[in-house]
Parts: sequence; C-alpha cells; structure tokens
Amino acid sequence: MSSDQRFHQAALELGFSFDGEIRIGGNYLPLTRHGNEIHVSGQIPRIDDKIIVTGRAGDGTTLADAQLAARICAMRAMALLQRHLGSLEQIGGLLKVNVYIQSSNDFIQQSEVADAASEILLTVLGPAGTHARTSLGVFQLPKNATVELDLVAFTH
Amino acid sequence: MSSDQRFHQAALELGFSFDGEIRIGGNYLPLTRHGNEIHVSGQIPRIDDKIIVTGRAGDGTTLADAQLAARICAMRAMALLQRHLGSLEQIGGLLKVNVYIQSSNDFIQQSEVADAASEILLTVLGPAGTHARTSLGVFQLPKNATVELDLVAFTH
Amino acid sequence: MSSDQRFHQAALELGFSFDGEIRIGGNYLPLTRHGNEIHVSGQIPRIDDKIIVTGRAGDGTTLADAQLAARICAMRAMALLQRHLGSLEQIGGLLKVNVYIQSSNDFIQQSEVADAASEILLTVLGPAGTHARTSLGVFQLPKNATVELDLVAFTH
Repeated sequence: MSSDQRFHQAALELGFSFDGEIRIGGNYLPLTRHGNEIHVSGQIPRIDDKIIVTGRAGDGTTLADAQLAARICAMRAMALLQRHLGSLEQIGGLLKVNVYIQSSNDFIQQSEVADAASEILLTVLGPAGTHARTSLGVFQLPKNATVELDLVAFTH
Repeated sequence: MSSDQRFHQAALELGFSFDGEIRIGGNYLPLTRHGNEIHVSGQIPRIDDKIIVTGRAGDGTTLADAQLAARICAMRAMALLQRHLGSLEQIGGLLKVNVYIQSSNDFIQQSEVADAASEILLTVLGPAGTHARTSLGVFQLPKNATVELDLVAFTH
Repeated sequence: MSSDQRFHQAALELGFSFDGEIRIGGNYLPLTRHGNEIHVSGQIPRIDDKIIVTGRAGDGTTLADAQLAARICAMRAMALLQRHLGSLEQIGGLLKVNVYIQSSNDFIQQSEVADAASEILLTVLGPAGTHARTSLGVFQLPKNATVELDLVAFTH
C-alpha cells in the first residue's frame, strides 16, 4: 500500500475528509520549498471553516481531545505536502516536527499529545515519517485551537 | 524601486529608524549563515535601548499595539539581513517566519498580529517576501516584549 | 584540548554524567540528519529518569535553577551529537538554538536563562558553538521541566 493509500485510510478512520480546501488563516503560504527542503506552516485542527478541537488541554479539553487535534494537524500537513508534491511518495523524510499544545496550568502531558501526531505520521509515511520533535505547552493558540503543528520535510 | 528603497520608505512610515545598532540581548549572534540559508535570531520590538511595545496582547496592550510590535520585529530582521548581505536584493526568499505573541488569557488574534509582520515583509521584499508561518501565543517574552519574531531566509 | 575533552570537563564541572542513555519521552528520534544539517529534538533537563529542574522560573524555581536546567539541556543536545557523529569535532557550526523557559507570570529573564545554554555551547564547541537564538517563556513544558532546548547544527 502506498503512503497515499494509507493517508486515505487514516482519513477514513479519523472520520474527516482532507479533500477540501486546506484553509489557512492569514497572509502567508501553506508551505515553502527551497531545494528539496519544505517548510509547512503551523496547522491548527481546522476542517473547512470549523476548528474541531478548541480550549486548553487539561481544562475541559481532555488528553484524548488534544490527541485528536494533533492527528488532524498532522493530516492537514500531509494533505498540503500531497497536493504540492503530487504524491506523499515524493517525501524522502521529515526533519523536524514541532507540536504546540494550548495547555492549562497543570497539564504536563504535552509529549503524549505530540505522540498522537508522531504516530499518524509514521503510520502514513512509514520510514519516511520518522522525525526529530519538540513539544511545548503554550498559553494561547490562534482561534483558541488546542494544538498547532508545523514541520520541515525533504523530498527524494 | 528596490527592496532597499522600500525598506527605507517603510521605516519612514513607521516613524522609526533602523540605521542604529540592532542590539541583541544575550550571548548569541544576530544571524547565522550556512550555504545560502540564513537563520535570524528572535527579534523583539527594540529601538536602541527601548522596547517600544510591552505587555500582554489583549490586556492593556491592544491588537494595534501588537501589530506595531510585529512590524518593528520584521523591520529589525530585515535590517540585520540588509547589513549582512549588503542589500535586501540579495534575498532569494523566505522559508519560514515564526511570530510569538505574549498573550492574555483570552486573546486569540495571534494570526491578525502576525499578519502585520507578514504584510511588511511582503511590502518590502515583494515576491521574495512570501513565507510559511507559525504564530503562537506565548506566556512570557524576554523583557516583557509583546512580540518576538524569527525567520529563515535564503539568498540567490 | 578537543571539544570532546571540553565536553567531558564541562560534565565534571556540572556534576552530572551524560554517559548513560539519553532518554527521550515519546515516539520520535533524538535527531535527524539531511545532508550535513542535523536537527536535534527538544531536550529537557533529564538525567536518566529524573528531571533535574522542574517548576516555573520565577515561582519557586530561581534564575540559577533555570540556568542549570539550560546547561543540562545543552549538554544533552551535545551528547546526542557526539554519539551520532563519533566526535563533537565533526560539528562545523550551529545554525539556531531555541530555548523555551516555563515561566511564571512576571518572569522576564528568559534571555539570562538562555545565556547559560549559549555559554556552555561556546565553552565546549568553541567557534563552532556560535549560533542564532530565540528564547521564549512558555506556559507548560513536558513533565513540568523548567527548560526545553532544541537546535540545528551542521557538520563539516
């Protein structure tokens, strides 16, 4: 099974479609490319016009909610790469994934939230999905999103 | 008009001069270069020794204040690139811009703050100013600055 | 004296050993390499299973505590590079260091914390240790760590 097929399968399992426009909320590009390095802009868990998971992890928003948010962010990033490259098979690897979690005062499971993103990247991309990572608990994210994720990838 | 002339014009319109020393607050370099990739250190809205905009966006510091801060940070980053490269015309493009906004508990307009930085980068650099972006609401910034911005650029 | 010898000396002075496993807390790689660029994942001040410095800088956790945390994070990053490359002498330079400090509401000495990391990088790596830097005060870090640090390095 190709990474594109696994992407399709992962979307079905999540219950969200990433076939529509991947909207971004400002005056910037969804991704940039220089040589074979690609920087994907920060993704929040938006499907069409709706932010699927909002609020602070640990305060009304559960670990499971935040993990869902992380998966949607990772899927959006891959959807953008797929459209730009034609196929996820063009990805040679990921260099770095940053996961930002809007956190309550005593929420310290940022790594567990970020693992949900890491796992779906690995599931879809296989060996090309391994990555270095930084996960942080931030105070506020745009549009009250619970998670934001950006990444650096490279092509074959 | 060259990007250097547009930079000069933008500084006049902002009402601040970026001709003086671009001071940084620690034991690090304003930028690093490797091949044709340049990493610019996090810039706060400092002119000479004064931080022009301080406080939390959404709590005493308005959206307009924070947008001014974002513009000054972007201008400082461009001033550093201009000095290093001799001319902003040497910039081939921007890969990534990160905008960090010191935010109050309920401020969620981080994208609108970051747009002010994005727009001045586009105004000055033209097509070379497009970029991928991540904007985050953080809890504290050095010296109580309202905004911090860093970026990755590449040269022709 | 080689950078590896200086690393050993710095570890002795800090009073911690970095000879054991450099554990990471999630489903990701400690570092990735593409061409001669290396991204090191976010490091917290962990020695074996213990997070050496926890809590918010400025609220129970002092500036000096946070600086110790920053040094340990930087040493961990160098330990990972040393193992991957065989020797720290293989490092051509650092491009960017990001230092994230879990901060209390009124703690604004993020630069002073980050300087402790910058200084130990410079002490150990010499001219190859200079770097661009961003330091941020974040709301929460994984496992209640006081500091997290990641970096981008390149090899000769």
